[in-house]
Amino acid sequence: MTVSILGTTGYAGMVLLRIALGHHEVDRVYPVSGSRAGAEVSRFDPGIPADLAGERLGATNGTFCTIEDAVDAKPDVVFSALPHLSSAAALEPFLGNCVVIDLSADFRISDPSVFEAAYGQPPARPDLLSQAVYGLSEVERESVRTADLIANPGCYPTATLLPLIPIDRAGFVAGRIVTHAMSGISGAGRKNKLNLLFSERTENANAYAPGTSHRHHPEIQSRLGPSSRLLFTPHLVPLSQGMVVTSVVPVTSPAETAIRAVENAYEGMPFVRLRGEAIPETRDVRNTNRCDIGWRIESDTVLLFSVIDNLWKGAAGQAVQNMNIRFGFSEREGLNQVGEL
Amino acid sequence: MTVSILGTTGYAGMVLLRIALGHHEVDRVYPVSGSRAGAEVSRFDPGIPADLAGERLGATNGTFCTIEDAVDAKPDVVFSALPHLSSAAALEPFLGNCVVIDLSADFRISDPSVFEAAYGQPPARPDLLSQAVYGLSEVERESVRTADLIANPGCYPTATLLPLIPIDRAGFVAGRIVTHAMSGISGAGRKNKLNLLFSERTENANAYAPGTSHRHHPEIQSRLGPSSRLLFTPHLVPLSQGMVVTSVVPVTSPAETAIRAVENAYEGMPFVRLRGEAIPETRDVRNTNRCDIGWRIESDTVLLFSVIDNLWKGAAGQAVQNMNIRFGFSEREGLNQVGEL
Amino acid sequence: MTVSILGTTGYAGMVLLRIALGHHEVDRVYPVSGSRAGAEVSRFDPGIPADLAGERLGATNGTFCTIEDAVDAKPDVVFSALPHLSSAAALEPFLGNCVVIDLSADFRISDPSVFEAAYGQPPARPDLLSQAVYGLSEVERESVRTADLIANPGCYPTATLLPLIPIDRAGFVAGRIVTHAMSGISGAGRKNKLNLLFSERTENANAYAPGTSHRHHPEIQSRLGPSSRLLFTPHLVPLSQGMVVTSVVPVTSPAETAIRAVENAYEGMPFVRLRGEAIPETRDVRNTNRCDIGWRIESDTVLLFSVIDNLWKGAAGQAVQNMNIRFGFSEREGLNQVGEL
Amino acid sequence: MTVSILGTTGYAGMVLLRIALGHHEVDRVYPVSGSRAGAEVSRFDPGIPADLAGERLGATNGTFCTIEDAVDAKPDVVFSALPHLSSAAALEPFLGNCVVIDLSADFRISDPSVFEAAYGQPPARPDLLSQAVYGLSEVERESVRTADLIANPGCYPTATLLPLIPIDRAGFVAGRIVTHAMSGISGAGRKNKLNLLFSERTENANAYAPGTSHRHHPEIQSRLGPSSRLLFTPHLVPLSQGMVVTSVVPVTSPAETAIRAVENAYEGMPFVRLRGEAIPETRDVRNTNRCDIGWRIESDTVLLFSVIDNLWKGAAGQAVQNMNIRFGFSEREGLNQVGEL
Repeated sequence: MTVSILGTTGYAGMVLLRIALGHHEVDRVYPVSGSRAGAEVSRFDPGIPADLAGERLGATNGTFCTIEDAVDAKPDVVFSALPHLSSAAALEPFLGNCVVIDLSADFRISDPSVFEAAYGQPPARPDLLSQAVYGLSEVERESVRTADLIANPGCYPTATLLPLIPIDRAGFVAGRIVTHAMSGISGAGRKNKLNLLFSERTENANAYAPGTSHRHHPEIQSRLGPSSRLLFTPHLVPLSQGMVVTSVVPVTSPAETAIRAVENAYEGMPFVRLRGEAIPETRDVRNTNRCDIGWRIESDTVLLFSVIDNLWKGAAGQAVQNMNIRFGFSEREGLNQVGEL
Repeated sequence: MTVSILGTTGYAGMVLLRIALGHHEVDRVYPVSGSRAGAEVSRFDPGIPADLAGERLGATNGTFCTIEDAVDAKPDVVFSALPHLSSAAALEPFLGNCVVIDLSADFRISDPSVFEAAYGQPPARPDLLSQAVYGLSEVERESVRTADLIANPGCYPTATLLPLIPIDRAGFVAGRIVTHAMSGISGAGRKNKLNLLFSERTENANAYAPGTSHRHHPEIQSRLGPSSRLLFTPHLVPLSQGMVVTSVVPVTSPAETAIRAVENAYEGMPFVRLRGEAIPETRDVRNTNRCDIGWRIESDTVLLFSVIDNLWKGAAGQAVQNMNIRFGFSEREGLNQVGEL
Repeated sequence: MTVSILGTTGYAGMVLLRIALGHHEVDRVYPVSGSRAGAEVSRFDPGIPADLAGERLGATNGTFCTIEDAVDAKPDVVFSALPHLSSAAALEPFLGNCVVIDLSADFRISDPSVFEAAYGQPPARPDLLSQAVYGLSEVERESVRTADLIANPGCYPTATLLPLIPIDRAGFVAGRIVTHAMSGISGAGRKNKLNLLFSERTENANAYAPGTSHRHHPEIQSRLGPSSRLLFTPHLVPLSQGMVVTSVVPVTSPAETAIRAVENAYEGMPFVRLRGEAIPETRDVRNTNRCDIGWRIESDTVLLFSVIDNLWKGAAGQAVQNMNIRFGFSEREGLNQVGEL
Repeated sequence: MTVSILGTTGYAGMVLLRIALGHHEVDRVYPVSGSRAGAEVSRFDPGIPADLAGERLGATNGTFCTIEDAVDAKPDVVFSALPHLSSAAALEPFLGNCVVIDLSADFRISDPSVFEAAYGQPPARPDLLSQAVYGLSEVERESVRTADLIANPGCYPTATLLPLIPIDRAGFVAGRIVTHAMSGISGAGRKNKLNLLFSERTENANAYAPGTSHRHHPEIQSRLGPSSRLLFTPHLVPLSQGMVVTSVVPVTSPAETAIRAVENAYEGMPFVRLRGEAIPETRDVRNTNRCDIGWRIESDTVLLFSVIDNLWKGAAGQAVQNMNIRFGFSEREGLNQVGEL
């Protein structure tokens, strides 16, 4: 199996490459980098020793390649970890020729006007929005199995929606949902921005883009039923990787019934771990594809606690999980990491 | 003016001592430490050079002293930064003899049964609970002026209540308040606990004691009107000092009116800075006594963002502010720090 | 193959357990914890999900066990990650019955009087010191192959000795070696100590135990030739995992020849990566068993730069590497991790 | 007294502005920012509340100003915190018209060819190099008193030279000095560089520019006697502010005599604190202008440990100290901060 990765030198791309190099169904990887084509991967990213990359990078002699090389390789699947608003265009030569898994937002929102309101310009390929399958793996597994274009969810939507959707779909939401999230700084990407410098973020924390103003709000809202209104406030905290989401959900049925809906939805699924009354920490899932979910009940209200690694279940990990589902591999293949210390 | 400090070697005590040494109305400071009496302060805490401590520690020759020394000094004011459940007892010899400002929870909750439910044992001096003034300076300034026993608020209550109280007192709260908070690790105290180790907290974050289960919940709830019900979820993040509180408040009146209540309440006050639509960051107030407050409106709901330094406005800074008010000093005396870089 | 681990709940023990659970030659693991016997491993350490631990913890039903259980299991190998001065005693029932790999200092120093000078009391088993093989894998591989008692090196000695030994053994050292090291905080262990708290270590750094005063100094010095005198100064920096060692070595031969000795010594070895003039970063080896080594020449002096993860190549990783060598497994088995992002 | 600051929006400039606003001899401050002229200072930098900035920023209505405004203000002193290679040119209109204190490297190295070798281009004003006084305050106090052009030392040189110079000047250095330093990330400036991002620097550490290759090496070397040869290796560690320097110095005289030279040199000086055998930590001096110095003796070798805050004694603090000396103010004015918790 041949895999191409666009945007390999960003944080999600670097994780994708790591997972691909350890995946038993992947034979060849074409790591694309516009600016670094020809440069040795293990020199740019010493976390990947040349001997471990081995044969899977053999086709490019262990170097980054151009997008043309990646097209010529006729891959079975292409991942794009490029930024939104440039990903869809870069994927053009692959569309229709292989399975496309886009980690950007370019295909995530079905309604072009909602997309434009959130991203400031119309989607590049409005004609494809309805074909794209939203790759929240646990929820859309059946659709993913046959999808040729998978819009991989954002990190905030993944961590927020997984605990909410079973309650929402059962019709148990009885009032406005209030969600508070915090993200590691890697979620903002590997970009030259002053406000992402170490000296700006260490010993600092803040809310931003609150209520309905974050770009991920419409992505989340559009996956919930019309009566589940959401206020969503993200925060930046001095972590590199990790995401914590806390949602307060008024419910109609007895709160225990709502919890049971969550338990039933994810029973036996490999990457959702139900922690019950134990509240999860980001450390529990760091560098893994897991979403850990805990809860508490306050009379007619459910408090839901979910943690993910924003670069794994929130990006690259879920992308590979979707590839596994799409190609009929074991869903766990390449993704069986224990958590870090 | 003579000041005694109990519990000087904890984080709040260390900040108290710093402020006291730079306070122009303070002549002598008696820094008490049960376990370190006789040890040189600037050796234990090299952040305080002996030459800067100077004459104010002259009475103890620059060393920590015993509680007996502090009693014998007949101070004008005693601060206790001892842990709750041991502070009230240690303050016994001072009660009635000088102004007492207690940074622990021992006098904060008026109802003994509520105290017992939160702290697992009855209050040490239930007879004094009704006399103690709750030292949320901006709100209780008039009562503080004449108080002989001041219960200095907790950090979460301070950051949560300041933006909420004007809306609550105006009767504008129209439904359940949902508050999410995050605290720097110093808020847990300077204690030998495994889960406070650097290697446990760096690159880690989590919710804890959610809903109504944190000890500060009754402290906050009891300061709000009976119709303002609160769900409060604190989180630990890898900061040393700093606190972020985000509250979602449904309001009856036009949201702008509710905001105006906040603006009116704090106009001209030295330590509340209204930031409008600019959302504050903990860095903006680090090592200062300020509470910065921002807001956003979502139709009939107000989102309130407040940040403090948990050891300053959330503990030692507010304690000195209360001393300033009580003794008729400038409220800013000793507390005019700019924020850190 | 059956493995017992003593001291599983410390940092090195937690890493050992992770590696053992992913090691293809290990069938059963007995994770000992004196204080937590009977408690569920994946509840204590949520980084290890119960389903991943699977059958290898089946013998203890997924719980920690007592040392008696671990003895009764008649393991093929026992690892001790207990603190020095208590490890040797705890290993008594295993000595002579299986391969013993001790991560503490108890068997590392051959001369009992040197041990006593460094650790303040005589070694528990002076009779065994000469039998114990010092498990610096790359250097002592042949001795490890047949050893029944392996003294696993300390983290500072591992990172310091690997680049130095080839130059030392070739007789090229021409004067005093000056070594500066810095360590992540996890190197100090998972202990209730005030000076390891997050709020004490974040935004803080310092030298300690300099010159010849650190306990690891005699461990390093005794592995070098008598004419290679060493001044060694460790520093604490706000990392959790990671170690940087910089050594300045005057050499007799042309400096290029000394470098060539290093290159020749480690050619083809799986866990030493020679980086040439590229200076390695701790990130390059985090959560891996690698030691990355770079260098620069200043006329007749060689500057050597080495990085390891103190819990992996500096503790648990090298312990498993030694097991692999001892039992004739692939040296890489269980240790093929790429570096973290 | 009127003060202009060039480069106010970098880290050193932000600290300079903070100090200037609290300095009792400063009446008016002109904070220059090329890119932000007209913008409100307290909005850009919320750590400085408008009410605390008060009258001192009155001349610019609390906003940043242009360099022309700063020239027109006819200041008594101008500080430049601009980057090297652009600072000298920007200072042109001030030279000869007021006291100039340049925090960049542009006037630090007297020999133009040494400058060019280090900075890749010739100095902008080679004619002024011999007039510029090197503002290592404790060492050059007498020259600073009458200087009109002060080259403020770099952070590494300050922390390295202070303990070394007394031993060097007494002629006690008996062999090559080996210095190892580590710096907080703010030392690299407030620049859009990928390798300064939070996610690149947290949980990461490394040596760089070792031996004689760092730009600060010639700055340090040129202040030492010709027989004191230095190998200097800096390291980056995940701190924002702080610097640790450890030097190993072979000495001719009894080591105690060399130490006595250090003690004698700094006796009674306000910003050098001699800690004896107590090794200082960066926390001890954070956000202060102090340099704390400790030492240990290893027979004929002295180990020197010094810590500073790289933005204070290593940049802005020492610049103000130099202004105080030059204008005959108390050397401590504006610089009496205790250390942070």
